[in-house]
Amino acid sequence: MRNVEQALIDFLTAAAPPGPGVALSIGDDAAVLDLAGTGNLVVAVDTISDGVDFHLGKVDPQRIGRKALAVNLSDLAAMAATPRAAVVALAMPRDGTLDLATRLWAGMRTLSDEFGCPIVGGDTGAFDGPLTLSVTVLGSLEGRAPLLRSAARPGDAVVVTGRLGGSILGHHLDFTPRVREALALKKNYELHAGIDISDGLALDLTRLCRASGVGATLWADKIPVAPAAFEMARRAGGRATALDHALSDGEDFELLFTAPWPVAEQLVRDRPVHPTWVTIIGRIKTGGELTLVVEGRPRELQPAGWTHQFGRQEHECG
Amino acid sequence: MRNVEQALIDFLTAAAPPGPGVALSIGDDAAVLDLAGTGNLVVAVDTISDGVDFHLGKVDPQRIGRKALAVNLSDLAAMAATPRAAVVALAMPRDGTLDLATRLWAGMRTLSDEFGCPIVGGDTGAFDGPLTLSVTVLGSLEGRAPLLRSAARPGDAVVVTGRLGGSILGHHLDFTPRVREALALKKNYELHAGIDISDGLALDLTRLCRASGVGATLWADKIPVAPAAFEMARRAGGRATALDHALSDGEDFELLFTAPWPVAEQLVRDRPVHPTWVTIIGRIKTGGELTLVVEGRPRELQPAGWTHQFGRQEHECG
Repeated sequence: MRNVEQALIDFLTAAAPPGPGVALSIGDDAAVLDLAGTGNLVVAVDTISDGVDFHLGKVDPQRIGRKALAVNLSDLAAMAATPRAAVVALAMPRDGTLDLATRLWAGMRTLSDEFGCPIVGGDTGAFDGPLTLSVTVLGSLEGRAPLLRSAARPGDAVVVTGRLGGSILGHHLDFTPRVREALALKKNYELHAGIDISDGLALDLTRLCRASGVGATLWADKIPVAPAAFEMARRAGGRATALDHALSDGEDFELLFTAPWPVAEQLVRDRPVHPTWVTIIGRIKTGGELTLVVEGRPRELQPAGWTHQFGRQEHECG
Repeated sequence: MRNVEQALIDFLTAAAPPGPGVALSIGDDAAVLDLAGTGNLVVAVDTISDGVDFHLGKVDPQRIGRKALAVNLSDLAAMAATPRAAVVALAMPRDGTLDLATRLWAGMRTLSDEFGCPIVGGDTGAFDGPLTLSVTVLGSLEGRAPLLRSAARPGDAVVVTGRLGGSILGHHLDFTPRVREALALKKNYELHAGIDISDGLALDLTRLCRASGVGATLWADKIPVAPAAFEMARRAGGRATALDHALSDGEDFELLFTAPWPVAEQLVRDRPVHPTWVTIIGRIKTGGELTLVVEGRPRELQPAGWTHQFGRQEHECG
């Protein structure tokens, strides 16, 4: 395994030349970044592991590596931060090969290059566990305020990008983090609060509302349901509807944000992030209640129940 | 496990108020740091896991948490960077409890407080593997140059802090990262190259020499041998000497650095980091050879062989 680690360092040192803002990349005890003038720094960490977030052996390792970085870029998107650099902790199973490691890294590099987010450091070791990748990303705000969960106000429109549900059929591995959308929207419109949908619309809206001390009403007929959610409903044979999947499936990695109502209407008209869908699905209200209106009838939105049925910790991985 | 995660977030949010430089701590999609005017940013990541770096069940979890942060602070020390913030990815075994998690965090907090390095973000999940902690640390240079592996020059003295070997008897869990020593030495003396000794003196000196394109001569009788190395030799019953342990045991987490000879002599006289030992143990030379002089007789220093016998990946954990 030490040989794998050394070979990997050699591979990475050759493969990852320092980019703009990177004073020193992989190969020393730490990396050095020159982020002068980029304003406050945003830091996020997220981990994916075999058996929880993917199944090694059923999936091309490049897609796994890509996902490890993508879930983190989604956190930067949720803050409306510009990706700057990433470091990776790779815990390899004992029988892990250099080929596996380089394919994981190749997958990360795809997205790293696409979003200008160089991988500047890493740590690789073998252990008696399933393949696990922890990525830490750094982003910058360039003088902008971050998009927080805690800034929703009564009267705000609740807006979502993309279409929701059924991500287990493939989207959870191949999604494109909404970094460009978040930056374009934050730069050009007054947004109030934001979060990325990692554990399902219902649960993540609950988190946003709790952080802001508000409630929300969602209109079921406005929620953009992904084709994969309909496919999941078909397979479920009546146990869950496509709407259930859109509300509760994890790993959509879409943006959920709030904005003053007229601003939200304007940005939906402007289509500034076309072809990505942007849809108003509800309204923030005072009090802590979350309400779902289905066919004109309001009912309480219950995130917790759905989490246990379909949440990220539990669902099968394709 | 989700309940553990939520409870932990609640615990951490209450336990970790934002400090200086922390604009937003745990609780949103990411943390926000205000590092204006602190110069270039240093980033390092390191992972420890059960069965490799410690044995859960034989060790107080507080010591495990402390070690997870300590090995990372040691990397910042190796760069002569000031600790600024850390984020933690905690992968818990399926039977992990909130009590285990909070004790791990309490251990991290001890060192976090001691070194003014707030834990600003985290990610906790359950998986089918052994307890694993990946920590990413951020440090600042305040306009100083980083201490690199690649800057050793022929004629430099090779200097080491502390005493080496036998860390498995306890030091590997309870060491104090040499942050204060690195900062005091770098600030007041002309240092050339530096690295922390994580995989044994012989191997880490090899790394430093390779990165600098130089060789080195070490004098066996100058190497400060830890009492624990003598104890290990006693237990080994002739299979390895105390010197062998000082050269090859992993996880000393001492600083190994080079400086112009007169500077090194001066700083040894000055004792600027007393009571930490600072010892000249060798000299950098041209060419790539590493030589160990034992009782007046030079022999080749072979790091690789020792690594496999005693290196970090292989050794038992107490």
